[in-house]
Amino acid sequence: MRALQIQAPGKAAIVEVEPPRPGSGEVLVQVEAVTSCPQWDLHLMAGEQMFPEVPIQYPYPPGQPGHEAVGTVTEVGDGVRGLRLGMRVAAWRDPGHDQLGSYAEYVVRAEDDLLPVPADLPPEALAPLELAMCVQVSFESLERRDAIAGQRIAIGGLGPAGLVAVQLARVHGAAEVIGIDPVAGRRRAAHELGADRVVRPEDLPEPRHRWTGDAPFDVAIDCVGSAPSVQYLMDRTRLAVALFGVLREDVAFGWKHFIGLGLLGYGEHHRGAAEVALRHVLDGRLDLGALVTQSMPLTDYEEGHALLGTREALKICFYL
Amino acid sequence: MRALQIQAPGKAAIVEVEPPRPGSGEVLVQVEAVTSCPQWDLHLMAGEQMFPEVPIQYPYPPGQPGHEAVGTVTEVGDGVRGLRLGMRVAAWRDPGHDQLGSYAEYVVRAEDDLLPVPADLPPEALAPLELAMCVQVSFESLERRDAIAGQRIAIGGLGPAGLVAVQLARVHGAAEVIGIDPVAGRRRAAHELGADRVVRPEDLPEPRHRWTGDAPFDVAIDCVGSAPSVQYLMDRTRLAVALFGVLREDVAFGWKHFIGLGLLGYGEHHRGAAEVALRHVLDGRLDLGALVTQSMPLTDYEEGHALLGTREALKICFYL
Repeated sequence: MRALQIQAPGKAAIVEVEPPRPGSGEVLVQVEAVTSCPQWDLHLMAGEQMFPEVPIQYPYPPGQPGHEAVGTVTEVGDGVRGLRLGMRVAAWRDPGHDQLGSYAEYVVRAEDDLLPVPADLPPEALAPLELAMCVQVSFESLERRDAIAGQRIAIGGLGPAGLVAVQLARVHGAAEVIGIDPVAGRRRAAHELGADRVVRPEDLPEPRHRWTGDAPFDVAIDCVGSAPSVQYLMDRTRLAVALFGVLREDVAFGWKHFIGLGLLGYGEHHRGAAEVALRHVLDGRLDLGALVTQSMPLTDYEEGHALLGTREALKICFYL
Repeated sequence: MRALQIQAPGKAAIVEVEPPRPGSGEVLVQVEAVTSCPQWDLHLMAGEQMFPEVPIQYPYPPGQPGHEAVGTVTEVGDGVRGLRLGMRVAAWRDPGHDQLGSYAEYVVRAEDDLLPVPADLPPEALAPLELAMCVQVSFESLERRDAIAGQRIAIGGLGPAGLVAVQLARVHGAAEVIGIDPVAGRRRAAHELGADRVVRPEDLPEPRHRWTGDAPFDVAIDCVGSAPSVQYLMDRTRLAVALFGVLREDVAFGWKHFIGLGLLGYGEHHRGAAEVALRHVLDGRLDLGALVTQSMPLTDYEEGHALLGTREALKICFYL
């Protein structure tokens, strides 16, 4: 079968590989489409580590870093209970990058890593389910500490994760959703997806006391992962900043945050968060298709990657 | 009446002042004893600000910074419902330092800032109630995010607050309570008050991955307020570090904390936390008297202050 392989920084090719076979508790999925995960795609193609302690080795395993996949079950391993031949499924968990990834005609996944999805939705509305699960985890970490319902919530960074967060903030009952991004097109997209206000970072000066009503936000989710973005939210948020974007740099937490701010590291992926996200896809409150700005065959991966790099594309749906 | 006044850094004197009169919703309390709050006492006598944005002006208001007080209601203002003449009360809230403080023969307090306490306990077992309320607030902030029950909890710094925290950790059902302090006598006191293990900071090296079982602590409370102390706990704690000691410096939160760590700023004082603390004083699980290493008349304040400065005293009970 054919799979994409990132062979060196900047160089991706379609290669022939042995089709995988499902083991116990696993199924074989014929991949219909995979949405890009810009963080992973851009880091790997640039030769940059995604996590400080995990060096990259090229050639990268075939099919990687594809993990936001939708497809059809074509073979069922021993002991699988909930999935049957012909079912359409979406992958809610990225099982790691040491095995065949989903940028491939077929992929093997543990039954527990997949959720059945309806046949009548377009693939781009389902493939980003894993991203939606990830963002829902940040909402859960905020909800455990401070209610989101009735609060003013800031979403820092309006890329794909930020646009999911804007929609989930509405679902969680936020009183006001404020989207922050320097890029006008992204602010526009956030507004269309339900943000009450969209601002450039410089539109909101640092308040004199963040623990009073002066703070423009009650809670916030950072979807950027850079120190300036997180620090910006910390200085303007009354109760809690949840981190979603992978933070590779240090931020400073000090006297001006001491009173009442919680800085919440990223929580644990789990199936329940994926089920919540899928429910909102199905009830029409979470439009994942809106994140996808381009669709193209997987054979055009390098072209798609270039569009992600220039930010002409937000998220790309690669079909097989 | 007589009251203590800090007239200049290093100089405290007993002065004569007009006795206060209770207004609506207030009572007059004849002060029986006040326990020192070493943070405030040491900062004020050293001419150092307690909070970066609050400059100190000398002479400081009479009676300040005394606020951990126990005494008897001797006059009742209009509209007071729950307190009566002759009741013994403890102050659970420090109403601020712009008025007469409790290092005085009499003090006026809002009814809501006092809790009735039994007549048969010694004053040093009751006066530190405000401190116990403050520490309970940190436990509540941890509990909202991560259970304390069944967890390994570190208490950083075994001064008065740390020794309250050791006892409250037991009350909250921690599986293991680890006390950390460079001073041997403080470690010994923590052990006697229920810590399972007491260590010097250097006894526990930084784990390779704090988000795994390698981390020596699941949750932690910092009772020091210095950047090295907080950073030490952040690097060794799996789930959450709650800040109790006033943090005036910056700590760095970065990649090694991103996975799963919550850094929790200080929460809000409230009467419910004081009621919980008092309940545990009464059921014998919270021994506040154990924090008090010396008792002396208020006229010996300068001598008591010197003992706090050299750490010969942990907490002093000044009687009127």
